[in-house]
Amino acid sequence: MNQNNSRPTLHTCFSPALLHLYDLNNAVVVIIDVLRATSTIATALFNNAKSVIPVDSVAKCMEFGRKIACVTAGERDGVIAEGLQYGNSPFEYSKDFIGGKTLVLTTTNGTKLLHMALERGAGQVVTGSFPNLSSVCEFLLSRHHNVVLGCAAWKDRLNIEDMLFAGAVINRVKQHFAINCDSSKIAETLYESAQPDLYEFMKEKDASHFLRLTGYGLEEDIRYCLTPDVANVLPFYQGGSLIIHKK
Amino acid sequence: MNQNNSRPTLHTCFSPALLHLYDLNNAVVVIIDVLRATSTIATALFNNAKSVIPVDSVAKCMEFGRKIACVTAGERDGVIAEGLQYGNSPFEYSKDFIGGKTLVLTTTNGTKLLHMALERGAGQVVTGSFPNLSSVCEFLLSRHHNVVLGCAAWKDRLNIEDMLFAGAVINRVKQHFAINCDSSKIAETLYESAQPDLYEFMKEKDASHFLRLTGYGLEEDIRYCLTPDVANVLPFYQGGSLIIHKK
Repeated sequence: MNQNNSRPTLHTCFSPALLHLYDLNNAVVVIIDVLRATSTIATALFNNAKSVIPVDSVAKCMEFGRKIACVTAGERDGVIAEGLQYGNSPFEYSKDFIGGKTLVLTTTNGTKLLHMALERGAGQVVTGSFPNLSSVCEFLLSRHHNVVLGCAAWKDRLNIEDMLFAGAVINRVKQHFAINCDSSKIAETLYESAQPDLYEFMKEKDASHFLRLTGYGLEEDIRYCLTPDVANVLPFYQGGSLIIHKK
Repeated sequence: MNQNNSRPTLHTCFSPALLHLYDLNNAVVVIIDVLRATSTIATALFNNAKSVIPVDSVAKCMEFGRKIACVTAGERDGVIAEGLQYGNSPFEYSKDFIGGKTLVLTTTNGTKLLHMALERGAGQVVTGSFPNLSSVCEFLLSRHHNVVLGCAAWKDRLNIEDMLFAGAVINRVKQHFAINCDSSKIAETLYESAQPDLYEFMKEKDASHFLRLTGYGLEEDIRYCLTPDVANVLPFYQGGSLIIHKK
């Protein structure tokens, strides 16, 4: 019991609409938007982007584009938003292209949650998806702080892939945290059920994002976003930008 | 595809804090509060209670007690609330005791969700838990209306047992509904993982309500509330009371 009490806590929040239930003060909040925002953010930084600035509207993204040297990116309904240059796919951000540049990315669900977490006093904010799973876990284990795994969801509705990532993290770090949180238990159970092939699980379940993205012909994006450690860096929020956290 | 489109929809809402995301108009809403409100409601009606009046405070419960001939019941923190006569355990409501009587029951999470569903224009409101699983499923299949499975949760936080019940319903009725809802897929996956022994699953996962109720010595209540069809009637909300729905 003492051992348990001395461990930091870990909670999982399945939707931005539930974030108010969790105490973020001094906690590490992991923003999870697997398809595709946080996968693309990890990829751009892994490929040497200088930083990624997450913004919540096309207008703000364009404003950055006028003010600073940057790549502006974002999609609406599966196509590049009018006025922006690039899309949301991690495959667009190769080393050759994004190295040394600042990416200003507009996403809806992930960015909204990130800003909500900051407003609610989150101690530290990082982003996570399968491409940087190990980096996220190592960071959480190194901090000894309370953790909230925040799923970006889709317009406040839970989605399978963000829960799968939360479950994957819990599966790796649970021995080191006190977890009195049914949502975390549910996420881990879902992850265990989806093993060994997360892509097949998403397909078999007709996951809503699986249907949406395959409708746009983006099967390879989904496969990539579910692959562990292919862009294994830790995006860390600092002064308005996400940059790689140095160990 | 046409076949799919002609089917009514089914969604699962994991928390009262997410209810605004769902269209309840003309839908059947199933209020789920497995431990223990909706298990006890089914049991009291199965044992010939005249009706069950769900109220959201001890004060309202006492007020009914002064105005009409009824049994007032409700707990706070595991003991009978001051001013009320009985508790929340289904075992308190045998045929001998509750037959022919009106039970006024105050619960927090389940009653709150029920009233929210009514305010949001739910077409029909029924209550469900494992003791009346088959009745709930038969009713949903007989209606051809859209369905929202509403988990009462615990102070807006998801809990395992309400999701397990949603999953059990989905597992039985899914062929007859169009289900484009990740929450429903998650609930069904959780239910499948928990089979064949829901009690052991709750125990193994240290489910928050499992810990809370076993802390009060209520293991047998949990076992009962997870047992299918031991009080197999359908509580149907009508004019302020829950009564048995006649086929």
